[in-house]
Amino acid sequence: MSGEPLDIEGWTCPAPLRDSPTVLLGHGAGGRLTAELVEHLFVPALGGDATALADAAVVDVDGVRIAMTTDSFVVRPRWFPGGNIGALAVNGTVNDLAMVGAVPLYLTAGFIVEEGLETEELGRLSAALGAAAREAQVQVVAGDTKVVDRGHGDGVYITTTGVGLVPAGVDIGPTRAQPGDAVLVSGPIGVHGVAVLSVREGLEFGTEIRSDCQPVSSLVADLRTAGIDVHVLRDPTRGGVAAALNEIAGSSRVGVEVVERAIPVPDEVRAACGFLGLDPLVVANEGKLLAFVPEHQADEAVAVLQANPRGAGAARIGRVVAEHPGVVVARTGIGGTRVVDLPLGEQLPRIC
Amino acid sequence: MSGEPLDIEGWTCPAPLRDSPTVLLGHGAGGRLTAELVEHLFVPALGGDATALADAAVVDVDGVRIAMTTDSFVVRPRWFPGGNIGALAVNGTVNDLAMVGAVPLYLTAGFIVEEGLETEELGRLSAALGAAAREAQVQVVAGDTKVVDRGHGDGVYITTTGVGLVPAGVDIGPTRAQPGDAVLVSGPIGVHGVAVLSVREGLEFGTEIRSDCQPVSSLVADLRTAGIDVHVLRDPTRGGVAAALNEIAGSSRVGVEVVERAIPVPDEVRAACGFLGLDPLVVANEGKLLAFVPEHQADEAVAVLQANPRGAGAARIGRVVAEHPGVVVARTGIGGTRVVDLPLGEQLPRIC
Repeated sequence: MSGEPLDIEGWTCPAPLRDSPTVLLGHGAGGRLTAELVEHLFVPALGGDATALADAAVVDVDGVRIAMTTDSFVVRPRWFPGGNIGALAVNGTVNDLAMVGAVPLYLTAGFIVEEGLETEELGRLSAALGAAAREAQVQVVAGDTKVVDRGHGDGVYITTTGVGLVPAGVDIGPTRAQPGDAVLVSGPIGVHGVAVLSVREGLEFGTEIRSDCQPVSSLVADLRTAGIDVHVLRDPTRGGVAAALNEIAGSSRVGVEVVERAIPVPDEVRAACGFLGLDPLVVANEGKLLAFVPEHQADEAVAVLQANPRGAGAARIGRVVAEHPGVVVARTGIGGTRVVDLPLGEQLPRIC
Repeated sequence: MSGEPLDIEGWTCPAPLRDSPTVLLGHGAGGRLTAELVEHLFVPALGGDATALADAAVVDVDGVRIAMTTDSFVVRPRWFPGGNIGALAVNGTVNDLAMVGAVPLYLTAGFIVEEGLETEELGRLSAALGAAAREAQVQVVAGDTKVVDRGHGDGVYITTTGVGLVPAGVDIGPTRAQPGDAVLVSGPIGVHGVAVLSVREGLEFGTEIRSDCQPVSSLVADLRTAGIDVHVLRDPTRGGVAAALNEIAGSSRVGVEVVERAIPVPDEVRAACGFLGLDPLVVANEGKLLAFVPEHQADEAVAVLQANPRGAGAARIGRVVAEHPGVVVARTGIGGTRVVDLPLGEQLPRIC
């Protein structure tokens, strides 16, 4: 590397200009640049307010409360340890529905295929999508296929949209966190991002790290059945736990305090993150949730999550405080505290 | 041209092999190749039957009948006379909802942006999308943005998904055509496809031809209010009127007979199609509908459509017959008949 001349053309600024005249990779990374694009471009253009453009919306159809959410999946590579773009397209959208307390019911899938993709691979990815839908107990009811010419795609991009039913009495949303709430996570973090990076960059970390790509809707159902008064749910995908907690702290105008050593980070993930210079808190997850619940129900909620195989590694990682509204701090192993900031832009492009 | 060597690498077979091992542009064209991909690849992979994967599905949520549909838009260029990819993404999806008789209510929008797109253009396209949504009286309730690296997109692709309410008593679908039905079209055909081609290929046809990109949901509402017993509706987009009529004839197992000179084709479209060697019946429309109604209500239905500015050019163009089920024939100007076949694959790539 050191012998090569600096490639100015392909060089990416690690902290790109905030008022860039063009769209940067970082605008799609789920960090501060994405938030700014939504707030300053999409919301004024499309009408409505910023909260109305959250990942899942709850709307009324003839007196029934339904949740709607959409996500485009552009993960590279399409196959990675523990998953693929087809399964991810189902679980990502199912989980977004679950995060407003909805029971996921129906999916649509739009495929943008690059000319030249092997038909056999498209078939395998579709079968993976179908299998994931059955596992998550949702039905794929409508689809669309477009083909773009070579050099204008990357195999296949999949956009899924989900519709779910919000049960009566359920009121879960990012503005409902309140001082005294306990913050839970349903299992070890950072796994999806490291699994994708490991194959993309050809890195070997000793043990194979497999993505946690899975539906978490059954965890939400279990919490509801147990009578837990869940205030906020969030699946920490792009931007990881750091982005999710920052968004909740901002929306609810509360402070969040996490205890670093309480956060489950697998050794392999910690090692890989050390090697790559990443904070595990900003690495994407695809089968985990964060839950904000009243302090007095925290232990019970952790037990409920742990009783489900999909939440076996659940843990309590922090609490909501009245101080420093909008700011997330972490108590470090050596007794200090640090601010956990919303990542600016791109650390892991095309992770989902 | 004639002096240049044949470019074997970039050469596209006009009638590609049906069992191609790779995906071809024609698989996205809405013709026979698309139908085969859906029938032989997506339906087995995703479960369900072919009708369940129609453009819009009608599903039950807690006793309410809702319609769901999704479409990815990859039109090139992004701006064309009479429209742009943002407006198209709204109207295409709104119209698909209307085609099962649903009242369109909510949209989601997923943007796949290529790194380097000017932020200002993304803003203008989003504003166009927002304006089209207001005009079509639907609300954009959720969105997503992904950014892909240069050379893996083409400015922006937009996937919209729509949800609508199917009013009580409405039963409109592609299997309900029956012998004796009259076939109506809501206005002149072929305009969108020719408008896009004209700018893409740098062709000039004397007069500027503007896309008919518009919502047709108010036409459907007018027919319902007037008490017309509509059996089938279809917006003849990719593959044009020919593909739409063939699909209906196949689904309903009836024959369709159209009278060529009764089909409204603007002179400019006819001239352009002659120049390009295209049949106007296979050219895409983005603001028209085909309606199958009982013979005794046909004149009234045409009058209802004509009374709405969006259906001013409505006409009766044919009828359903018991003979030749699954086959569409056209009576030509000189008194003969010809079979109107489903186009095989690609005539107009990336038209929507």
